[in-house]
Amino acid sequence: MERVLALDLIAPAKDAPEKEVKVTGWVHRIREFGGVTFVILRDRSGLAQLVCAEKPVDSSGQGLTLESVIQAEGLPVLNEKAPGGVELAVSRIEILSRAAPDLPYQVNGDIAKTGLDTILDYRCLSLRNPKIRAIFKVQAVIIEAFAAYLRSLDFTEIKTSKIVGGGTEGGTELFEVVYFDHKAYLAQSPQFYKETMVASGLERVFEIAPAYRAEKHDTPRHLNEYVSLDVEMGFIESEKELIELEKGILSHIFEEVARKSRKELELWSAVVPDPDAVHSAPVMGYEEALKLANAEAAKASSARIFDINPEAERLLSAWAGREKGIELIFVNEFPRRHRPFYTYPLDAHRTMSFDALFRGLEISTGGKRLHDYNAFLEALPKFGINPEDMEGYCSLLKYGCPPHGGFAIGCERLTQKILGLANVKEASLFPRDRKRTTP
Amino acid sequence: MERVLALDLIAPAKDAPEKEVKVTGWVHRIREFGGVTFVILRDRSGLAQLVCAEKPVDSSGQGLTLESVIQAEGLPVLNEKAPGGVELAVSRIEILSRAAPDLPYQVNGDIAKTGLDTILDYRCLSLRNPKIRAIFKVQAVIIEAFAAYLRSLDFTEIKTSKIVGGGTEGGTELFEVVYFDHKAYLAQSPQFYKETMVASGLERVFEIAPAYRAEKHDTPRHLNEYVSLDVEMGFIESEKELIELEKGILSHIFEEVARKSRKELELWSAVVPDPDAVHSAPVMGYEEALKLANAEAAKASSARIFDINPEAERLLSAWAGREKGIELIFVNEFPRRHRPFYTYPLDAHRTMSFDALFRGLEISTGGKRLHDYNAFLEALPKFGINPEDMEGYCSLLKYGCPPHGGFAIGCERLTQKILGLANVKEASLFPRDRKRTTP
Repeated sequence: MERVLALDLIAPAKDAPEKEVKVTGWVHRIREFGGVTFVILRDRSGLAQLVCAEKPVDSSGQGLTLESVIQAEGLPVLNEKAPGGVELAVSRIEILSRAAPDLPYQVNGDIAKTGLDTILDYRCLSLRNPKIRAIFKVQAVIIEAFAAYLRSLDFTEIKTSKIVGGGTEGGTELFEVVYFDHKAYLAQSPQFYKETMVASGLERVFEIAPAYRAEKHDTPRHLNEYVSLDVEMGFIESEKELIELEKGILSHIFEEVARKSRKELELWSAVVPDPDAVHSAPVMGYEEALKLANAEAAKASSARIFDINPEAERLLSAWAGREKGIELIFVNEFPRRHRPFYTYPLDAHRTMSFDALFRGLEISTGGKRLHDYNAFLEALPKFGINPEDMEGYCSLLKYGCPPHGGFAIGCERLTQKILGLANVKEASLFPRDRKRTTP
Repeated sequence: MERVLALDLIAPAKDAPEKEVKVTGWVHRIREFGGVTFVILRDRSGLAQLVCAEKPVDSSGQGLTLESVIQAEGLPVLNEKAPGGVELAVSRIEILSRAAPDLPYQVNGDIAKTGLDTILDYRCLSLRNPKIRAIFKVQAVIIEAFAAYLRSLDFTEIKTSKIVGGGTEGGTELFEVVYFDHKAYLAQSPQFYKETMVASGLERVFEIAPAYRAEKHDTPRHLNEYVSLDVEMGFIESEKELIELEKGILSHIFEEVARKSRKELELWSAVVPDPDAVHSAPVMGYEEALKLANAEAAKASSARIFDINPEAERLLSAWAGREKGIELIFVNEFPRRHRPFYTYPLDAHRTMSFDALFRGLEISTGGKRLHDYNAFLEALPKFGINPEDMEGYCSLLKYGCPPHGGFAIGCERLTQKILGLANVKEASLFPRDRKRTTP
């Protein structure tokens, strides 16, 4: 007998012979009414109503429980009140896995009434809630669209090691790994490796992989392990080409999410930005952005802002939304003191680097990198870095390295902001913070 | 002026106006002949010949070196001896990044004459060799094809944490991470997480991510960090559906690699198997496979084989190649003692699990998993496991879990065997072994 999905449970054609079908899934709700048991079955496609004339029991005579996994056979029958207008008149039902009745988490409950810690503690169950599961359907579309767009521009996907001998950004905020007889660390980013691959002659590369930050703060915008959508590209003049590339990526992601995740967006009452509007997102120098943020803060009688901090990110995004029709703004020309040693200078104080702010949150950082060996050797002491600790970097630049640059988009942050989630942890399947390493 | 790739440097059309183009890339070779400098330029698409009437120098008067990055403008001119039949008559050349002349590794040399340690020590340079870089172009196609095939069957891509509280397979062979105030580990596989996502209602999931094995052995078949192509699927009867799925995946990968990586395959004189032949690959029970391996060993007067060890993997693959036209064989019904506690039993001694052997190497392991909570609780003590240490697993199975199973393909091993590489480390960009954490 053919297995159909809840979504495929459609009205039988008129005059067609009646034909039984099979559905499988989880028991989402049970209702008894007039001796009949109504079971709402949940599968990967949605919900379906099953009508059982007899009370379903398993081989040892135990009754159905919420979240049990069942297989049911029967005839599709029209019923206006059922999801999709069709229900299954069950002739045979089998309990494949009976759920214990002491469910510690109410899967079919209202997640707005559930605390985040409870949702994360009972992740095995909370992910069964269609609204929570929807987050990760959207995330899968984001990842697919990111890769597809870059492949269309001749970028090659790479996979680089996350166990590294040292940090690219200096030695701070690294998780240590006990690696046989010596110390190693978890990579904060594939920075050095993606630059190596550009200089290897691939010229254009991307990577989708975990990145690690041993930061102690516990905020709605931080994860200690996150999925980094990394891009690096050779033969660029300045960071402006990177910003154009990122606009193209975001535009394609918004287009694909709107197209493929309509149901998931509805569950969150989320609207993705117009893909065309992305190209109108402003690009503004750091100093000008800081002035604008302060002007906006003054209007709201808020305190003075000294940096593009979270408050400034919110004000600048809101301004772009009002003025340009999209809550997305690229701030470039960051001061040198805010950027890592490998950032390409624009002048004595400013760099060819940028952040992307989307709906009040920095979702991406990038820039052009130093590619000249002598300029690199000159820069290191200014950052208190010993060239001997940068052996890998030195050999990368010493033997012919094209002008290049890149950026990384935080996958969970982008997911969070597309759906309007309050906390970035909601956009991580099994988030890691200072206290949480399980489940 | 338009930048063209080496590959696009084609003959000017007859009677068309002459038009200068720009190329950028690395200096692969330099030859001086009769006062003219011939430069072979290498870019991401291939090689191009540049003809310079004057000796190229940089702004400080220094001459061209191998591996320098240059930009050249000129007219495309027919020349039978140039790659692609066209060379560039250079009117202007600029050195974007001059390579130091003390190259520690000869990029344009014959890699067959270079030891693996040298290739890995100078990874920044060895990856510039077109034959070595080709490995990772093929790997990118493998990853893309794996994901595309599974998406076409309604599988959802997931990204799960690699920092975990403990190991799924027991506590051995785990790398420890110093995680704030408590111990954590690097995941050996996303086993528990992918099962959770099946039971979450996604039903069909895949993940492309690093996996870690703290194994001390240093062999041509082992990596301590590798890219695992993971699949998990709900509502299956037995491991046979998983084998069919894996055949479909491999068939699609072979088809895509043959189609997209023709040049890369040529560099390695590699031939991918016929995508159709994959479906003829035999499926054989463990005991029968062991008998066959011994019969094959006896023919070669080799010693008796007591297990499906590397020697048996070679003999069985070779047999399948001879008898079925493809060096691929699935061995199922592995004895219980060889498989983890969560493996679904076929009978008292055998399990619903399998290995895939391809060209003499195990590239994949999988099977149906226990999904019944009571059967799981009964199995644990037989493996000396305390149910309290398996809290996550228990809650996964306690509250309704469909029959399910999955497998993982080692991405580097598959790459290795498609190209015929001697050592799996060649198929990892920055391989990690007991001694190596850099570059």
